[in-house]
Amino acid sequence: MERPRPRRGADGCEEPEGPAVTTPSALDVLRALLRCPSVTPAEGGALDVLQGWLEPAGFAVHRVVFSDANTPDVDNLYARIGTGAPHLVFAGHTDVVPPGDAASWTHQPFAGEVADGMVWGRGACDMKGGVAAAVAAALAHVAERGAAMRGSISFLITGDEEGPAVNGTAKLLDWARERGERFDACVLGEPTNPSRMGEMIKIGRRGSLTGEISVEGRQGHVAYPHLADNPIPRLMRALDALKAEPLDAGTAHFDPSNLEVVTVDTGNPSANVIPAECRARFNVRFNDTWTPATLSDEIRRRVAAAGVGAHRLSFAPCNALAFLTEPGAFTRAVAEAVEAETGVAPALSTTGGTSDARFIVRDCPVVEFGLVGQTMHAVDERVSVDDVAALQRIYGRVIAGFLSP
Amino acid sequence: MERPRPRRGADGCEEPEGPAVTTPSALDVLRALLRCPSVTPAEGGALDVLQGWLEPAGFAVHRVVFSDANTPDVDNLYARIGTGAPHLVFAGHTDVVPPGDAASWTHQPFAGEVADGMVWGRGACDMKGGVAAAVAAALAHVAERGAAMRGSISFLITGDEEGPAVNGTAKLLDWARERGERFDACVLGEPTNPSRMGEMIKIGRRGSLTGEISVEGRQGHVAYPHLADNPIPRLMRALDALKAEPLDAGTAHFDPSNLEVVTVDTGNPSANVIPAECRARFNVRFNDTWTPATLSDEIRRRVAAAGVGAHRLSFAPCNALAFLTEPGAFTRAVAEAVEAETGVAPALSTTGGTSDARFIVRDCPVVEFGLVGQTMHAVDERVSVDDVAALQRIYGRVIAGFLSP
Repeated sequence: MERPRPRRGADGCEEPEGPAVTTPSALDVLRALLRCPSVTPAEGGALDVLQGWLEPAGFAVHRVVFSDANTPDVDNLYARIGTGAPHLVFAGHTDVVPPGDAASWTHQPFAGEVADGMVWGRGACDMKGGVAAAVAAALAHVAERGAAMRGSISFLITGDEEGPAVNGTAKLLDWARERGERFDACVLGEPTNPSRMGEMIKIGRRGSLTGEISVEGRQGHVAYPHLADNPIPRLMRALDALKAEPLDAGTAHFDPSNLEVVTVDTGNPSANVIPAECRARFNVRFNDTWTPATLSDEIRRRVAAAGVGAHRLSFAPCNALAFLTEPGAFTRAVAEAVEAETGVAPALSTTGGTSDARFIVRDCPVVEFGLVGQTMHAVDERVSVDDVAALQRIYGRVIAGFLSP
Repeated sequence: MERPRPRRGADGCEEPEGPAVTTPSALDVLRALLRCPSVTPAEGGALDVLQGWLEPAGFAVHRVVFSDANTPDVDNLYARIGTGAPHLVFAGHTDVVPPGDAASWTHQPFAGEVADGMVWGRGACDMKGGVAAAVAAALAHVAERGAAMRGSISFLITGDEEGPAVNGTAKLLDWARERGERFDACVLGEPTNPSRMGEMIKIGRRGSLTGEISVEGRQGHVAYPHLADNPIPRLMRALDALKAEPLDAGTAHFDPSNLEVVTVDTGNPSANVIPAECRARFNVRFNDTWTPATLSDEIRRRVAAAGVGAHRLSFAPCNALAFLTEPGAFTRAVAEAVEAETGVAPALSTTGGTSDARFIVRDCPVVEFGLVGQTMHAVDERVSVDDVAALQRIYGRVIAGFLSP
C-alpha cells in the first residue's frame, strides 16, 4: 500500500535533513485550498490540491466517492504514510458553506488573498486553515525524518461536513475500518478558539436530539369552546413541562444539557375557528448524563406527567451522541504543544455544536484544536497569517511527540 | 311607496277573509328558496323568490346592491307593507355557506326535497327556513287583515351574512335610516334552538375581538443559546398571562367572557436554529362587562405584566360589540308565542357566535328565534317539516300581538 518515498535518494540513502528539503508552508497550502470553490458538496479541486502535495511526499492517497439515494455524491480523501503504530490521524473537511453575496466581501471569497496580516476567504478558519496546517506539519515531519520516521500519519478528509454528513466521515471511517486501518489518536482541526489562538481545546461535544410533539384537539367554532377542544393550551402545558426543571446540573466536563423549542406551528388562518392540531419541534444539546434513549424516555415522562391528553411525540434519528475524550496523556500532549507555541494554557472544553469528532471517537481518542472561529460562516471569513503558522508548529509538536519512540 | 294590495277586489271592496285567500305555507316558500343556489355572495334567485311573493301581496320591494373595492357586490332586499307604527321588521339572510361535496349529501343540497318528515338542503336551518316562516306568516297576516291591518311589517334580507358582512345588513340599515325608516322591534330568524323547537331565544350576543401578538427574539445557533434569545418561551409566557385569570365572572344575562388562542406560528424549518420571531392570534368572545377599548387595554396590561420583552400586540378592527335587548314586553311576547306553540318555555340566552342582530340593535330591540340549528353548515342540513310550520305559527302570533291595537 505504501509508495516509494520521493524524499529518499535514488540510491536508497536518505537525503540530508534540514532547510534544503522544500516543503510547503501552511499558508501556501491554505491559499491553494482557498482558491478552490468547494462549496459543499462540491470537491472544487480542494482534494486534488491535497493529493498533489501528499502523493509526491510518499503518502498512499485514496479518493473514495460515496453515494446515497437521497443525498449528493461526495468525494473524500484518505491518505497514509507509514505502516506501523503509533498511528496519528488528522481529520477534517475541505467543503465550505456558500459565500453568500460575493460583492459584500472585502476580498473575493475564493481568491486566497493575503492583506493586513490576514488570509481571506470562505473556509479560511472552517476549516481549510486547519487542514492546511496539518498537511504542512506532516509534510515537514516526513521530510525531516525521512526513513527514520516512526509510526504512521494519516489524513481523513471529507467533503460532506457542512452538508448532510451522510457521505462523509462516517462512511469513510467504515471504509477505513474494513481495510484494517486502526487509529491510535486523532486531531481534528476545527476552529476551536473563540477569540484568540490557544484559548480552547475541545475534548468532547454534547449530543443533539431533535423531537416533535403534536397535540390533537377537536376543531370547532370559537364561540362554542365547550364543543371543541383547543390543542394550543395543552401543547403549551407540554412545552412548559419540558422546560420546567433543568435536565441535569452538568457533569465534570460538560455544561448542563439544554432544551430549546425551535418552532411552534398551527397554520390556522381563521380567527373564529379553534384548530384541530398544534405541533412543536425542540432540540436538546445533551451531555454525558444521557443517551438518546434515556433522554427521550425522560422527555416522554415529562409530557405524560403534564396531562397533555391526546398527542404524538416522536424523535428524529439521533446520530450525535455526547462523547468525551477523557483528559489524559494525549489531551495533555496537545495542550502542552498549544501552550508552548501560544503562551496560553488552553481550556479543555465540550461546548458548542456537534462536529465530525462524534464519528471518530468510536475508533480512537479525538482532540479538536484549530484556528480562531470568529468569522466562520460569515462574510469576510479570515484568519491571521501568524495563527496559521502557529497552528502548523503546534501540529508539528503533536506529531513529533506522538510519533517519538 | 306602498303599492295597491292585490287581495282587494277590483271594486275596491275587501275580498272575504278566510280559507279562500291563498297564501303560501312556510314549507312552500322554503322549498322554493332551497332550490336557489345562493352560495354567499350569490343571490342565486332567492331574493327573486321573495320578491315574487311579497310584491303581489302589496309590499313595496326594493333591491339594493352594495359595492366595495375589496369585497364582491351584494344584492339585498328591503320590503315594507303599511306606513304607520308600530313597525315590526323581520331580518334575515338568504345566502348560504358552500355545500361541500354534493355527493356526500343524502338529498341534493339545492333540490329542496322533503323526505322522512324533513326538508333537506343547504340553508334549511341557516336561515332560509326562518325567512320562509316569516314571509309566510306575514303574507297570511296581510291576507287576513287586509285594509284593516294596523302598523307596518318589513323584511330586511341580506345576501352577505355568511360572507364578509360588509355589503349586507349594516349598509342596508344605513340606507333604510336615510329613507326615514324607523323600526320598533325586530325578529331575526337565525336557528337559535340547540336541539328542539322552543328551547332558546337569543336576546343578545357576545362581542368578538381578535388580537395578534408577535414576540421578537434574536436568531442563533441552538448550541449557543446564550448568544441568542428564543422568543417562544416568552410568547408562551404572554399566552399564559392572557389565560391565567378569568376575564370576568359573567353578568346577569351573559356567560363569562372567553379567550381562545387560535393559532401559534413560527415557521422555522431548522432544528438547529433558534428563531427570531414567534406569533400568535387569539379571539375573545366578550360580554357586556367590556367594550373593545377596555378589553384591549386589559389584554395589553396582562401582557405587559408578564414581562414578555420586545413584542408587538395589535387588534383587528372590531365590528362586533356585545349587545343585549333587556328582557321586557317584546321579549316576553316572543317567549309567550313560542311557549304557546311548542309547550316549551324558552331560555333567554346570549350564547353562541355573532349575528347580524349586532347591527340592528342600534335601531331597535332585537329578538332572535328560529329553527333547530343542529345541522347548520353541515352536510345534510335539514329541518323538520313540523318545526317549519310551528315557526310560521309562532311568527304569526308575534305579528298579531305586536300589531294589535
